[in-house]
Amino acid sequence: MLNSVLQILEARRSTSLEQLKTFLAIPSVSAKPDHAAAVRECANWLSNEFEKTGLKSAVRQTAGHPVVVARNNHVAGRPTVLLYGHYDVQPPEPLDLWTTPAFVPTVRKDENGFDAIYARGAVDDKGQVWAHVEAIAAWQAAGGLPVNITVLIEGEEEVGSENLAAFVRSNREELKADVCVISDTGLFNRDTPAIDYGLRGLVYEEVVVTGPSHDLHSGQYGGAVPNPANVLCQLMASLHNADGRVNIPGFYDDVQTVSQAEKDQWKRLNHDEAAVAKSLDLPFLSGEAGHSALERTWSRPTCDINGMTAGYQGPGAKTVIASKASAKVSMRLVPNQNPATVQAIFRKTILDRAPKNVKIDFIINDHNADPVVVAIDNPATTLAAEAVKLGFGKEPVFIRGGGTIPVVGLLTRELGLACLLIGFGLPDDRVHSPNEKFDLDCFYKGQKTAAALYDKLSKLAV
Amino acid sequence: MLNSVLQILEARRSTSLEQLKTFLAIPSVSAKPDHAAAVRECANWLSNEFEKTGLKSAVRQTAGHPVVVARNNHVAGRPTVLLYGHYDVQPPEPLDLWTTPAFVPTVRKDENGFDAIYARGAVDDKGQVWAHVEAIAAWQAAGGLPVNITVLIEGEEEVGSENLAAFVRSNREELKADVCVISDTGLFNRDTPAIDYGLRGLVYEEVVVTGPSHDLHSGQYGGAVPNPANVLCQLMASLHNADGRVNIPGFYDDVQTVSQAEKDQWKRLNHDEAAVAKSLDLPFLSGEAGHSALERTWSRPTCDINGMTAGYQGPGAKTVIASKASAKVSMRLVPNQNPATVQAIFRKTILDRAPKNVKIDFIINDHNADPVVVAIDNPATTLAAEAVKLGFGKEPVFIRGGGTIPVVGLLTRELGLACLLIGFGLPDDRVHSPNEKFDLDCFYKGQKTAAALYDKLSKLAV
Repeated sequence: MLNSVLQILEARRSTSLEQLKTFLAIPSVSAKPDHAAAVRECANWLSNEFEKTGLKSAVRQTAGHPVVVARNNHVAGRPTVLLYGHYDVQPPEPLDLWTTPAFVPTVRKDENGFDAIYARGAVDDKGQVWAHVEAIAAWQAAGGLPVNITVLIEGEEEVGSENLAAFVRSNREELKADVCVISDTGLFNRDTPAIDYGLRGLVYEEVVVTGPSHDLHSGQYGGAVPNPANVLCQLMASLHNADGRVNIPGFYDDVQTVSQAEKDQWKRLNHDEAAVAKSLDLPFLSGEAGHSALERTWSRPTCDINGMTAGYQGPGAKTVIASKASAKVSMRLVPNQNPATVQAIFRKTILDRAPKNVKIDFIINDHNADPVVVAIDNPATTLAAEAVKLGFGKEPVFIRGGGTIPVVGLLTRELGLACLLIGFGLPDDRVHSPNEKFDLDCFYKGQKTAAALYDKLSKLAV
Repeated sequence: MLNSVLQILEARRSTSLEQLKTFLAIPSVSAKPDHAAAVRECANWLSNEFEKTGLKSAVRQTAGHPVVVARNNHVAGRPTVLLYGHYDVQPPEPLDLWTTPAFVPTVRKDENGFDAIYARGAVDDKGQVWAHVEAIAAWQAAGGLPVNITVLIEGEEEVGSENLAAFVRSNREELKADVCVISDTGLFNRDTPAIDYGLRGLVYEEVVVTGPSHDLHSGQYGGAVPNPANVLCQLMASLHNADGRVNIPGFYDDVQTVSQAEKDQWKRLNHDEAAVAKSLDLPFLSGEAGHSALERTWSRPTCDINGMTAGYQGPGAKTVIASKASAKVSMRLVPNQNPATVQAIFRKTILDRAPKNVKIDFIINDHNADPVVVAIDNPATTLAAEAVKLGFGKEPVFIRGGGTIPVVGLLTRELGLACLLIGFGLPDDRVHSPNEKFDLDCFYKGQKTAAALYDKLSKLAV
């Protein structure tokens, strides 16, 4: 049966690419209020595509952007798979750095000569979702999926899955499953497929410093008043020590030490730091002292500024002391840090350190996510590794990731689900950046892996 | 004769206000390359207005924006006055904070119930220039100015008067005068007219930090790479010590100490720091320890961030490590600091302190200005004080200012001219800020002062 499924996938390659282009052309930027209609359009389109495969699908409301839920007829005794993905994308800015526009999906060769499709969301996560849609469609065309499936594709992953928890809690019965499959990560490198077993958590904050009630002439007032931009820099700079450690009292209190065995396993991956640095035009990588780059991204927390605004940003000079300055800051968390605790000590630290003649406001709430490490010593993971081997022609390695998929902690906690993190992306896919891409070879191997995965998981004892 | 001049001014009040509105409506923003046509239009309009008063006027080219030069027939034996002003204005941003649009001049009451005209450039410097144009026109209508006048109104004051030095050097003979008059400052407060005798200098820098060659996913790479926004904050924060002093080695080496006598004189002005703080919605003023607010703005150098850009600045969250981050920084200088020296040590400090895996670029050059203290123990200043008393009904106080008028150093140095800094603005005119205004009472008293000044200066022995 799998063989005919794979033949169908093979035959549908160019059609599937065209379908992916249609999916990518919808600017479903969840962060932007003025894109709400496009987000909804994307949900409607996707739900309709699931209907076409023969699944029952619906666009379901939340307090924010809708989720798409689709399912086949569940047959008693068969394993049930919950497939999670997201149809929303990151903002495409800065627009001028895109070679082709973010929402005009374009196939071309990457710097290394590999064919890829370029668009915002190409790999994160529309392309990976689409690999599964193709696999599902092929199984359905070949006579029907061998497992019970419930598909949950949300529209708020890039803004912290704010409303998903409430949705999961209200629809616990409907979402019950034996295992959860998520394709929103990547290979270790082009030659090494991977299964992820760890993700970092997240706290996202926006700090606004307000000084004088209006912008001031920097000559007339400079030296006499607190300058919010200078204050912001002092506050932000205070968040790290000279050795690259985060300087927030209590920040590392709950950080789990990685065992030497696990570190040794990571060393055997032969991560080439010099090659990564070169690919980013950096003379060398840097960060917290005493840890390798893999350790720093997989098992150490961070505090990074993601955006900063103050005063005049146009061409030339303006001699002004701006009334306000603000920074968007994200902290990636590792087991066993708690987002609420970290958020509280972050805010306390900023307030404690701020001069008493400026006002501090924090905006953006509920964008927190737990760090997770998932179990891999289970039959589902063994079956998943077999599927990856079939799809990519190589045994996968087991790695952690530096990113965050808020739903993993949620599903583990709320539904007691084991999550299989099987990703088809490449490290150089420019996720969240201009010229995001999805390698076409990975796209097709991803479809094959997904198809094989549903076959393998049908053998899961339930 | 002065009496009939003053009567003409009185009769022309509403006409002069309409004329000022026309002047203010031209968006002559010198910093913005796309406003070059408006800058030129403004120069042409102004030159034509001088022609209407009977002066010979011309728009003269420079390597940048043009200057307007006008003059009457110089009569041997009469004192010659060089009137300097500028017709360019600061960028109006942030636009959304203007109650009425920056280039739609509007008369309304200010927060304290005084009539004022609101527009970008209202007081800095178009309104003050226009007070002189009216005084000149009235004198011409009454039979002719009693002095030789050369008017020099430039279009690059707000971008550092970059090309004025070359123009002055090439036209030394034509610009020769006995005294220079500049109205680009203000009263000490509404009840206290003032003559300025000191201005701070300026160094303006833009620092660009470049890290990775493109924006990165903050999860995938966070912790492994230098984040340019964090690096920028560290560099900017390093520029001050905890006591508010600028932390650039050598920065204070050439700073002249203010004599106790001068400090005592400033104390007698009874500057109300609490009232200033209140007017800015600040609980208290702050800055370098050990100096009053007046001392800090008049006689101490600064290092203020005027603008800052990094990463995502739209609504909501984007988890990105931006490739670049930049800050516009201005340093106000005091006697005897040298702009070139300060610029050099600023750049060296930034380069010394930057991590070795980011690239630092400096942009915006030639925006430097010397700090100046002008002599006031001379007959011209005594005559000017009499004119201010006639115009405002009160003796002026002698003060310094915190701002910069690049031309003052230039004219002193190149032409050996004594500069009379007689300003008609108020401290709360929101210069360089949204809702810039010019008080109408100050506008009319400024016209009267200017008219009286030409009368008084005709008695200057030459």
